[in-house]
Amino acid sequence: MAKEIRNREENYSEWYNNLVIKADLAENSAVRGCMVIKPYGYAIWEKMQAELDRRFKETGHVNAYFPLFIPKSFLSKEAEHVEGFAKECAVVTHHRLKADPDGKGLIVDPDARLEEELVVRPTSETIIWNTYKSWIKSYRDLPILCNQWANVVRWEMRTRLFLRTTEFLWQEGHTAHATEQEAVEETNKMVGVYADFAREIMALPVWVGPKTASERFAGAVDTLCIEALMQDGKALQAGTSHFLGQNFAKAFDVQFANKEGQLEYVWATSWGVSTRLMGALVMAHSDNHGLVLPPLLAPIQVVLVPIYKGEEERVASCSHLEQLKEKLEAKGLKVKLDDRDNVRSGFKFTEWEVKGVPLRLAVGPRDLANGTVELARRDTLTKEVVPLEGVEDKAVQLMKEIQDNIYRKALDFREKNTFEIDSYSEFCNRIEEGGFFLCHWDGTAETEARIKEETKATIRLIPYEENPIPGKCMVTGKPSRQRVVFARAY
Amino acid sequence: MAKEIRNREENYSEWYNNLVIKADLAENSAVRGCMVIKPYGYAIWEKMQAELDRRFKETGHVNAYFPLFIPKSFLSKEAEHVEGFAKECAVVTHHRLKADPDGKGLIVDPDARLEEELVVRPTSETIIWNTYKSWIKSYRDLPILCNQWANVVRWEMRTRLFLRTTEFLWQEGHTAHATEQEAVEETNKMVGVYADFAREIMALPVWVGPKTASERFAGAVDTLCIEALMQDGKALQAGTSHFLGQNFAKAFDVQFANKEGQLEYVWATSWGVSTRLMGALVMAHSDNHGLVLPPLLAPIQVVLVPIYKGEEERVASCSHLEQLKEKLEAKGLKVKLDDRDNVRSGFKFTEWEVKGVPLRLAVGPRDLANGTVELARRDTLTKEVVPLEGVEDKAVQLMKEIQDNIYRKALDFREKNTFEIDSYSEFCNRIEEGGFFLCHWDGTAETEARIKEETKATIRLIPYEENPIPGKCMVTGKPSRQRVVFARAY
Repeated sequence: MAKEIRNREENYSEWYNNLVIKADLAENSAVRGCMVIKPYGYAIWEKMQAELDRRFKETGHVNAYFPLFIPKSFLSKEAEHVEGFAKECAVVTHHRLKADPDGKGLIVDPDARLEEELVVRPTSETIIWNTYKSWIKSYRDLPILCNQWANVVRWEMRTRLFLRTTEFLWQEGHTAHATEQEAVEETNKMVGVYADFAREIMALPVWVGPKTASERFAGAVDTLCIEALMQDGKALQAGTSHFLGQNFAKAFDVQFANKEGQLEYVWATSWGVSTRLMGALVMAHSDNHGLVLPPLLAPIQVVLVPIYKGEEERVASCSHLEQLKEKLEAKGLKVKLDDRDNVRSGFKFTEWEVKGVPLRLAVGPRDLANGTVELARRDTLTKEVVPLEGVEDKAVQLMKEIQDNIYRKALDFREKNTFEIDSYSEFCNRIEEGGFFLCHWDGTAETEARIKEETKATIRLIPYEENPIPGKCMVTGKPSRQRVVFARAY
Repeated sequence: MAKEIRNREENYSEWYNNLVIKADLAENSAVRGCMVIKPYGYAIWEKMQAELDRRFKETGHVNAYFPLFIPKSFLSKEAEHVEGFAKECAVVTHHRLKADPDGKGLIVDPDARLEEELVVRPTSETIIWNTYKSWIKSYRDLPILCNQWANVVRWEMRTRLFLRTTEFLWQEGHTAHATEQEAVEETNKMVGVYADFAREIMALPVWVGPKTASERFAGAVDTLCIEALMQDGKALQAGTSHFLGQNFAKAFDVQFANKEGQLEYVWATSWGVSTRLMGALVMAHSDNHGLVLPPLLAPIQVVLVPIYKGEEERVASCSHLEQLKEKLEAKGLKVKLDDRDNVRSGFKFTEWEVKGVPLRLAVGPRDLANGTVELARRDTLTKEVVPLEGVEDKAVQLMKEIQDNIYRKALDFREKNTFEIDSYSEFCNRIEEGGFFLCHWDGTAETEARIKEETKATIRLIPYEENPIPGKCMVTGKPSRQRVVFARAY
């Protein structure tokens, strides 16, 4: 099975696609650009959702649900927003099909044309701010701290499973505040929630900071993001948090009476992460044997595989593993006993390796006699034979070790692939190799555009620096406040 | 606030709408027929989801996600299915908007017409069975036991919050089996899961049984359902489980090799419940004061209200209640301390009554002096003063009592409104009063249609009877195997 996964060193892109398919995470559907998220992939997404949702609620947010459809006219209300989304949206124009009079299946019923076309939401700022208008009268109605788990549609021309799909799943937080300061704090807080989630749960080191003006969300005053480095040296934006200023409040005329009874426009934020995180997870940690899952996101944390010849040994081994399964589950671990009798144990080993199960325990006749168990770690691909006695405590401890090790490995990789470069010609030569490049930039959109044009690298973010060290732009030699993070990106 | 809720005896329909709005459950959106589910309503839906999801997983199901869009041609593949859904679906015809050359906002870009129109899923049998085709080769790939949590769209002409909306949220289970018997068992099992959920969690007594042929799901061989009685005497279908036979396997050519290596078509089921359950919950239990929530679905189970005059009393009362809150939370209860200082306690009482919080505890200066607390039950609207000491245990016990009482009340109501009727003229006279009518029917679609035409009543289901008692059809006098359940329905 693993043979069918392309080597990542040979062709990273094919390796990724093979892996998503072979690990049963997702597949392409009959609908262009839309994916089917398979049960194993969805189980990982559910774990991400549960962790994020808990963190949102701990920071005072509540969930709600807003319509899938957005009236066409709403999109036009915020000038930049419409620029960003009108060109790639699914448009509903009719509400009925009818039998083709020529007897050839179904046609769109021309009598069922909508008065105003509806757009399938590419993001929900417009419909939500139109709704907030009736929720907000006074400062006492603020803040509103809503989140929505939903599907969204952006008509992408080139799609890739999880990374860029026409339909994807995400959460979008939309908050409303009485003051600019409070909205800015919320924007910061939520990008922090994303960064903590990425590091602690996904074992993914991330840079945190604002985007440049040209990379901002359409309609935002400021976009903060988390950026991670993939194993091919390309950056991946894993989450964004936008300070929207009063742009949407003005577009939808949402004002509140302040304590002095004066009307003011409301301040807004929005923030989101999506099933793209699944792509980041795969690309950041996996190897040529398949997926490597951090234990905190693994639907199966420990897989038990019996080794046997003949029925007698099979029964002995399986009943033994049933008991071990109970002990492991009593420790809160997610355990699978693979007792299939139609495939060999080698096949099972490969399959669970491809699926990234953090820990495999195998028990054969010799183990039964000796009171031992063979333990194999997915992250290091190491094996050892350990006493059965107390293996459940060892498994618990290993979950933590594996989680930490996966993070450390990714962090090491990023550190080895982060470079301070001062010469633009060196930058141009080395950008091909991949990695994060910390360089001085003169702060102009012109220089940024030239670099992108010439090297396909973009400014991923401007890192937070307590004591920024100034320098000279690597392209123009003009003054630069601090180094910024360049990379080629997904 | 409660004054703004119409009396349910005067106008049940307005009472319902007022209540959904006043209790902050949902509201109509700018998009025709689509609702906004507000945070308080969504919190109840999340509790329903969590309970159902746990039950699905306990019965061996896994979640997955399939595309929002269905190619138009897929709908036509199952003849009855297309009849049921083509007339009321949102059709995506284009993938881009562009600036109106006349400068008047946006228009649909005629150059971005889709080759094949896409339908926003009204249900997912077609796209899922098209997917299963590649998942199923052999009997070893079966059963497939998938569920999906998703939004669906049916272009309803007359909509009502939760009960009938253009977009709604639901879950849809889609299972594939090697044998007819196994699929039939699955169909039965899942309607049983729904019935248990309705009774145990929603405190909603339900009838369980098959629909007649004319009331079946479009494409099903058999449709089982749960039916509940609302307080206006109308029935509400709260969940369905369909045995689909081999209809979809044949339409999408999904065959498997059985143990003997012969190809057979796969057997299917599908089953779903939706945000309609929210409507059922409101209609079944609420009263003229507002919502009455079963404790197992209440986002807030206990609300604490301080009674005070002046700052000193306020501080004393609130700090006292903070401690009580911790004690109650330590018992696993969901507690809200309403310490707002800008509204009076009477206003708070009314608000939490409208929102259906099962238990209210109020503490004033006298209570502080006496070591007591005033306890008010939402279900019975009774109040008593009890010792503060041990009130957390009493609250836990009351949750169970209230849950049981709400169920008993609904069951009593249903029993008082279930009638055995043998004369069709009596049936015609009394159907107006509402209720479930157990009557003999000759089993023909003609008689069923005539009764519907003349009385607006439909056969809700055919109850399971171990020892059916035969009789004569109330309309035609022809033989009847057993009584069936008639009602007017939502």
